[in-house]
Parts: sequence; C-alpha cells; structure tokens
Amino acid sequence: MTNLIEYEASREEVRSVYDDIRTTRQTEYINNFWKALANHPPTLKRTWENVKDVMTSPGELDPLVRELIYIAVSVTNGCQYCIASHTAAARTKGMSDAQFGELLSIVALANTTNRLANGYQVPVDEQFRH
Amino acid sequence: MTNLIEYEASREEVRSVYDDIRTTRQTEYINNFWKALANHPPTLKRTWENVKDVMTSPGELDPLVRELIYIAVSVTNGCQYCIASHTAAARTKGMSDAQFGELLSIVALANTTNRLANGYQVPVDEQFRH
Amino acid sequence: MTNLIEYEASREEVRSVYDDIRTTRQTEYINNFWKALANHPPTLKRTWENVKDVMTSPGELDPLVRELIYIAVSVTNGCQYCIASHTAAARTKGMSDAQFGELLSIVALANTTNRLANGYQVPVDEQFRH
Amino acid sequence: MTNLIEYEASREEVRSVYDDIRTTRQTEYINNFWKALANHPPTLKRTWENVKDVMTSPGELDPLVRELIYIAVSVTNGCQYCIASHTAAARTKGMSDAQFGELLSIVALANTTNRLANGYQVPVDEQFRH
Amino acid sequence: MTNLIEYEASREEVRSVYDDIRTTRQTEYINNFWKALANHPPTLKRTWENVKDVMTSPGELDPLVRELIYIAVSVTNGCQYCIASHTAAARTKGMSDAQFGELLSIVALANTTNRLANGYQVPVDEQFRH
Amino acid sequence: MTNLIEYEASREEVRSVYDDIRTTRQTEYINNFWKALANHPPTLKRTWENVKDVMTSPGELDPLVRELIYIAVSVTNGCQYCIASHTAAARTKGMSDAQFGELLSIVALANTTNRLANGYQVPVDEQFRH
Repeated sequence: MTNLIEYEASREEVRSVYDDIRTTRQTEYINNFWKALANHPPTLKRTWENVKDVMTSPGELDPLVRELIYIAVSVTNGCQYCIASHTAAARTKGMSDAQFGELLSIVALANTTNRLANGYQVPVDEQFRH
Repeated sequence: MTNLIEYEASREEVRSVYDDIRTTRQTEYINNFWKALANHPPTLKRTWENVKDVMTSPGELDPLVRELIYIAVSVTNGCQYCIASHTAAARTKGMSDAQFGELLSIVALANTTNRLANGYQVPVDEQFRH
Repeated sequence: MTNLIEYEASREEVRSVYDDIRTTRQTEYINNFWKALANHPPTLKRTWENVKDVMTSPGELDPLVRELIYIAVSVTNGCQYCIASHTAAARTKGMSDAQFGELLSIVALANTTNRLANGYQVPVDEQFRH
Repeated sequence: MTNLIEYEASREEVRSVYDDIRTTRQTEYINNFWKALANHPPTLKRTWENVKDVMTSPGELDPLVRELIYIAVSVTNGCQYCIASHTAAARTKGMSDAQFGELLSIVALANTTNRLANGYQVPVDEQFRH
Repeated sequence: MTNLIEYEASREEVRSVYDDIRTTRQTEYINNFWKALANHPPTLKRTWENVKDVMTSPGELDPLVRELIYIAVSVTNGCQYCIASHTAAARTKGMSDAQFGELLSIVALANTTNRLANGYQVPVDEQFRH
Repeated sequence: MTNLIEYEASREEVRSVYDDIRTTRQTEYINNFWKALANHPPTLKRTWENVKDVMTSPGELDPLVRELIYIAVSVTNGCQYCIASHTAAARTKGMSDAQFGELLSIVALANTTNRLANGYQVPVDEQFRH
C-alpha cells in the first residue's frame, strides 16, 4: 500500500503544495490522492499545477461542466478513486441526481456507439473531414 | 469493408429509421454510421432510439454539453469515427475553438490522474463513500 | 512503417513458423501480422504457438465461437487490424450477417453496462461472490 | 455510495421494470445493478429493454454464447461487477470450468495480439478489405 | 470467487508448473495469480512458459526495465492485481522510490498525450512513416 | 481535420513554445502534434512544459528507458500517432530491433496477464499489500 503523507510529516516542497490546495479549495481537507502523490514531490507539484490550471482558471466551460467531463473519462476508464472523488466534487458544485443520471446515460451510450463504429469499420464521412 | 446501405436501396424497416433520423435532425443527410448499422436492422433501430432518447429528449443537460461528454468518451477510447462525427456535431451546436481546447485539456488531465490514482493504489477517502 | 518479411527473404527460424502456419491453415497465404512479427523471431514463434494452441486445439468451444470472442475483444479495444482479420476469419468459418450483427449488439451492450456499473459504483451482490 | 432502491421503496415506473425483470428471468431476485440504475428511472427502463432485447430475444447465437461474449468484453474492460455477475449468469446457463478456461485463454490471447498489431503498426491486408 | 489451488491439493500437471515457478524464482511462495490459473491447467502452463520466456530469458532489456514496462501497461489498464504484484516484483529487483515516481509520471504523461493526439486527430508526420 | 499551425503563421505565445522545442531538441523540425496543440495555446504551453519536464529533466531513468515506457502506454492504448512518433524517437535514442521486439513482447504479455487476473478475479496476496 502506498504511504499517505500527512501535512505534519511533509517536507517543505510538499507542504507548499498542500497549502496552495487548501487556499485554492478553501478547505483544510487534503484528499488521499495528493497524499499519495507526495511520495514523489515533482509529480505532486506538476499534477497540482495542471489540475489547478485546467479546472479552476477562467474559461468558457463552467466548473460543473468541467467536472462532468472529468467523470465521463473516469467512468470510461473504470478508475474507482477518480469516479468517487469527482462525483463528490460535482455534487459540491451542484450536480443534481437527474444531471448525474443523464451524464451516465450519455457515457454509456458513447461507449456503445464507439464499439459499433469500430466493429462495422465505418469510414469517416467526407464532410466530417473539414 | 462494411457495405453502406443507401436510402434508395433500403428495406422498409431501415427506411423508417432513416426517415425518423431525417425528421429529427432536420437534414437529408444520413451519415455512414447509420448506413453501416442498417446491415442489422434491429441494431439500427435500437441504437437510433437510444441516441434519440439520450441526446435529444428534454433534460437538465443542454445539447452542447451532451456533445462535449460524448467527445470526452470517444477521445478516451480513441474511436476515430466518433471523434470526427461528434466534433462536427458539437461545432454545429456552437462549440467554439476555446471550448474545444478546454474540453480536450480536461480529457487529457483526467486520463493522467486516472493513472496516477491507479499506480499509487490510492484508497478512496472515507468521506467520498457517503 | 514496419518491414514485412516475405517467405523468400526469411531466415530459417522464421521460415519454419511460416511453414507451420501454411500447413495448419491449409493455405499458402501468410497475412501481414506474421510478416511483421517476423522482425523478432522469438515473438513470432511464441505468438504463433499460442494462437495455434488456443484457437485450433480440441476443446469445448467450437472454432466459430472462438472467433466471435476474439472479435469481441478486438472491437472493445478498437484494434483495426484484428477486427479486419478476425472478421474475415469468422466469415470463412461460417459467420452469417445475422450472427455478426448479434455479436456486435452484445459487444455494444456490454460496453454500455460496464460503464453504468462503474459510474454507479455498484457493489457486487453477495451471491455472485461464491 | 450509490443508494440501492429496493422493490418495496420503489416508485411505479421502477416497479414495473422490476416486475418485468422478475417475470423474464423467472426469479424474485433483483441484482444490485438494477437497484442502482433505479436512481434514474429512464436509464433503468432503457437499459433493461436493451438487455432484454439483446440477450433474450430469439436469434442465431444461443444464450450461453451470448454470455461468453459479454464476459469477454467485461474482462477486457476490467469491470469487476460485470465479470462477477455475468460469470454467475453463464454458470447458470451451463458454462463448464473448461469452457470458462478456454474463454479466458482466448480473451487473454486477443488482448496480446491486439497490442502486437498496434505496436508493429501492421497494415491491413488487401484481402481483408473486401 | 475463484478457487485458489494449493500445491498440496494440485494435480500432477499443475504441480510440475508450480515446481518450475519455485525453481526459477528461487522462492517457495506461489502467488495467487498462479493458484487461480491452475483451475485451467493448459492456461497455467502456457502462461507460465510465456512469462518465464519473456521476463527471464537473456535479452537486451535488463530485469528491472522489464518490470517497469510491465507496470506501465498494468497501470494504464487499471489492473489492480498486476499493479500490486509487479510493483512488489520491481521493488525486489531494486526499484527506488524515485524510479517509481518517474515511471508513473511518464505513464501519466503518455496517457495524456495519447488523448490529445486522438482529440486533435493529428496526422502522422511523413518522416515517422519510414 | 485539425488545422496545423506553422511557425511562420503562429502568434507570439505559440512561437515562444516552438522556439523552446527547437532549442531543447536541437532540431528545426516541429512535429504535427505541437502544430495541432497550437490551436489552443494554453494546452500547447502546458503540455510542452510537462513533456520537457518529465522526459528531459535529470532523473534516475535514462532517456531510452523513458521512451520505452512511453511506447508501452501508447501501444496499450492503440494511439497510432504516439506509437509512430515515440518509436521514431526511441530509434533516435538508440533503440535496437531486438530491444523493440522485447519491449513489444512484454507489452503483449502484460496485456494478457492483466485480463487473466481480471477474469479469474484474483485476490491480491497479503504480502503485496505492504
């Protein structure tokens, strides 16, 4: 099992990332994902900067839509940790039961039609190439 | 290569699905995916009904968000046909270059963190279990 | 691009595998997959022995069912070469259009329900654990 | 964790699906998958209708072969719930230990050759294109 | 749950594989993977021969690098058993925390760029085709 | 098709990334991947910084081993672009035919055993949990 590194036991380079997570998310809670990444501080720092940039910087997709997309990928890949953590995050950002149900029905459908397109070896339509 | 079944050459059970696709989408164009599925009419009918239901019936996620989720799955699975066709569909529904860029950056990020969670065997936090 | 090694240009260790493929399959034709693997003779030999063993040795699943299972995996993974080659092989072994249509509809369905099970984080029923 | 909706606590639209599952399968038992989907009744109804149609309607593939294909996909995707539930279903339909062993050996083999075809970038043979 | 077949309860064809595993690995311990495969002796024998051949025969990649590649695949596929067992194996062969951290950061990165290449439908450069 | 943005036509924020790619790699050539990402400059910049950091900064894994790991992931995911580009990169860094053959045989093997572990639902050994 991976050693989870707590704030109190962390080195300076880890602690500064933990501090930024706390400030950015406005919560004291550091979830296990970050405590695991802290075993390799460069990965912790790089990953947090990427997450912060992609998920929280201003843009054209609102925060809840970003979480829905994140869940869609995680469900497709079958990543249990990510499904649990991002479903929780989406709930915090206002995801309703109906939105979650619709999200999963689209994910399920796309996984089906992806395989039908593969299986029938469907050639891409000329007009989708532009 | 899969035989693509054109409207004119199609049997009644196929033609009625093609007619519904045309009416629902308000276009004469039937894309290759459906022409391939027409080789097995029950699959054509079932798949179209599922797509119509999931992607066009009233709900809490707007049509563009539904397409973004569809693309997220298709990109994760590497389905070339579905990436091409749903990117085109999303453009028709108003997806901007910036939205597409943000979408792909989230898909890319989630695929990364999914593997970090796997690799570090991160246990799900107690509070994500409720 | 991978160099495809023809029979005439092949070394002894490759040629003996090619000969066995021809004898086993009762055809002169060596398909590109084997010509590519011939770039690393140990992989060619090991892979052919595995394929011959798993796909042609006596057992409880008939040859066509084995091909259907092979296609199911290849479609799920989106491996274009394997979809094309094993669909051709299944046709040779008698797969009808209806059987192929049913096969793909099951593959499509399983890919859908796999994600619904993931997304809803469904706990395994006690009775499925025995 | 997903709320599992029991028959007694279910709304009418859920209960009618549960009733049909019981009648079709000739068992009182409703497995967790359906109890989870019941959180979004349209997904429950659509998914059950698809499963019923694809897995139980008359066709050219017998019920056990359909389950073997289902398992092949679920094992490739690593869906624990689906592996457990469909392995149990296949046992009920008569799958022997030897058949299960052969099934997994084909799934394992196909996952191997799919990657060798990818890695060597093998071009599809002209004769597989027809 | 799969029946795990212990050495004492095993048949001759299983026992001879177990003996070879013990001799090759110079340990009495047979891990659960082999005890599960022993339910289908031909799969046990074939798989062990493949593993022994690929992972322990002389070659140009050293044993630790082979394990790193094995982990990279297992993490990408999300196979919990294989991640746990091969991470343990790599530790035994000398993998440091820093090496493991670097390995996972490469796996994470490749999973990201694979999707960016998919999503942007990037055409392969002419010079990569030679 | 994705618009590929050439150096001459690029904006300042793109050009500075292109310049850094050229300097770091000591070649004038910018491959299509980057020209595609340039459609969304923040993704171009972030991705390049990640690649540069993970693949070229000093560490315990040598440059060729890093490329082998990259290929292992790309082959498992079936990403054609990434397989082609990273195989070319590995060749440049000295990968021999034998090394490439061994790499693919390990990737193929791991994809096989991942599915056997899934299919037999093998429980993780107690000693792999520490």
